[in-house]
Amino acid sequence: MALQELSRHRCFGGWQVFLQHDSAEIGLPMKLGIYLPPAAEKGKVPALTYLAGLTCTEETFLIKAGAQRLAAELGLILIAPDTSPRGTDFPGQAENWDFGIGAGFYVDATEAPWQAHWRMYSYVTKELPALVAENFPVDTGQRGIFGHSMGGHGALICALKSPGLFRSVSAFAPISNPVNCPWGQKAFTGYLGADKASWAAYDASELMKAQAHPNPILVDQGEADQFLERELHPHALEAAAQISGQQLTLRRHAGYDHGYYFIQSFIEDHLRHHAALLK
Amino acid sequence: MALQELSRHRCFGGWQVFLQHDSAEIGLPMKLGIYLPPAAEKGKVPALTYLAGLTCTEETFLIKAGAQRLAAELGLILIAPDTSPRGTDFPGQAENWDFGIGAGFYVDATEAPWQAHWRMYSYVTKELPALVAENFPVDTGQRGIFGHSMGGHGALICALKSPGLFRSVSAFAPISNPVNCPWGQKAFTGYLGADKASWAAYDASELMKAQAHPNPILVDQGEADQFLERELHPHALEAAAQISGQQLTLRRHAGYDHGYYFIQSFIEDHLRHHAALLK
Repeated sequence: MALQELSRHRCFGGWQVFLQHDSAEIGLPMKLGIYLPPAAEKGKVPALTYLAGLTCTEETFLIKAGAQRLAAELGLILIAPDTSPRGTDFPGQAENWDFGIGAGFYVDATEAPWQAHWRMYSYVTKELPALVAENFPVDTGQRGIFGHSMGGHGALICALKSPGLFRSVSAFAPISNPVNCPWGQKAFTGYLGADKASWAAYDASELMKAQAHPNPILVDQGEADQFLERELHPHALEAAAQISGQQLTLRRHAGYDHGYYFIQSFIEDHLRHHAALLK
Repeated sequence: MALQELSRHRCFGGWQVFLQHDSAEIGLPMKLGIYLPPAAEKGKVPALTYLAGLTCTEETFLIKAGAQRLAAELGLILIAPDTSPRGTDFPGQAENWDFGIGAGFYVDATEAPWQAHWRMYSYVTKELPALVAENFPVDTGQRGIFGHSMGGHGALICALKSPGLFRSVSAFAPISNPVNCPWGQKAFTGYLGADKASWAAYDASELMKAQAHPNPILVDQGEADQFLERELHPHALEAAAQISGQQLTLRRHAGYDHGYYFIQSFIEDHLRHHAALLK
């Protein structure tokens, strides 16, 4: 699991580093970005994994969200993986922006040909945390996860399925109930097969109904989000939280859309949410 | 000078807007980005023009610098023009990343064919301020300018040549003495001709030697900047400030490079520098 450093930039007194490694779970080289706050030079610190949305890469969040300022102030490592395997030549892998390359949906695929490499759930919950902890000063008992859109879905399912691993979770405009929206149905059919019985294990609202995460969850949603009605369904998350007693703060913001101008406007609240829980 | 709105995004309680207009100075359509802080809904506010560096567009700063948070807090309009005309088909316009498209250097070209459209100095100091003030609530007595690299050069020359128009100025890693560096010599030869007598009118160090700007100037420079030795020459600016008595704070930061991870680390100091002068 050797990490190759691709670039390193001083940022808010810490380091923004981009890396690549040969992933055992994925079976291909994977890139990632890590922000190391100044506090990481003195000892172990909590670490937040950020999962990005459709079409994004390991760079998107670190370029656009304005998160490093707060990670430096709060003493948090940021970990940003890519959104899918790259380097395959599967038929159809790049014909759709919502399936295949850049659209891993953070599940372990069971359908051919995807199951050979599209193992983003195991990558994010097993190999990546171990890899980062081996190479950087992570306080391994203090991990959180968050994300946007497809990555908001990813963050919620990772935390709900592994609450001991990810003690804090939040999301920007997550795909809250993928089994009931076009993006989710397309991805789950392709990666998991037509039998919907297998889908619930990767659906945030279904998981939350069955078992609440032990810590409060923060979700922000723009009311002018162009994907809100068709794809995101935050009301399903609210209904699930009612059933299991999940502590959920779901904020709706007038005028905000689906992009990183929305995310940067509320990133501070998210990092403070995680920092308060990871003490 | 009608402005066409291309997109609009809610951001920190204000609006990030992208626009296009048919520029009289340039003779072609030009794009720009404007950030309107919440205070602009209640009355006129100061406005800062940001000039970007080589290869950038009107989007670069607004995506990467994390400036909107502070512009919202301090009540500043941000104005980000493109870095050159686009839409010509001049021979050689796109063969070099440091000349032609994306590399206007904020001068008015006198050499053919560039002089027909490459009039970025007049665009930034005349047409753009008038256009923005006609369409948005700018306090026209309270304008500042800043920029990065080629755009740091641009900001310095615009403010030094028009101190009444731009009352505050700052720069990140500016090309401080273009008549004495390869980037500047290549651009000035192409746009202004081989006669170096005409070049001094667009050289920040030469201009500062002759006449100090009435307000203090802030310049930040990374010491690990890959272009520092060959292209940037901040010492020339310090020498010029000595001669004219310019108040200049030039800070050198260990470990920082030439990119936006450097800029975002110090953007707050720049916006506060301008806000303090534009009261």
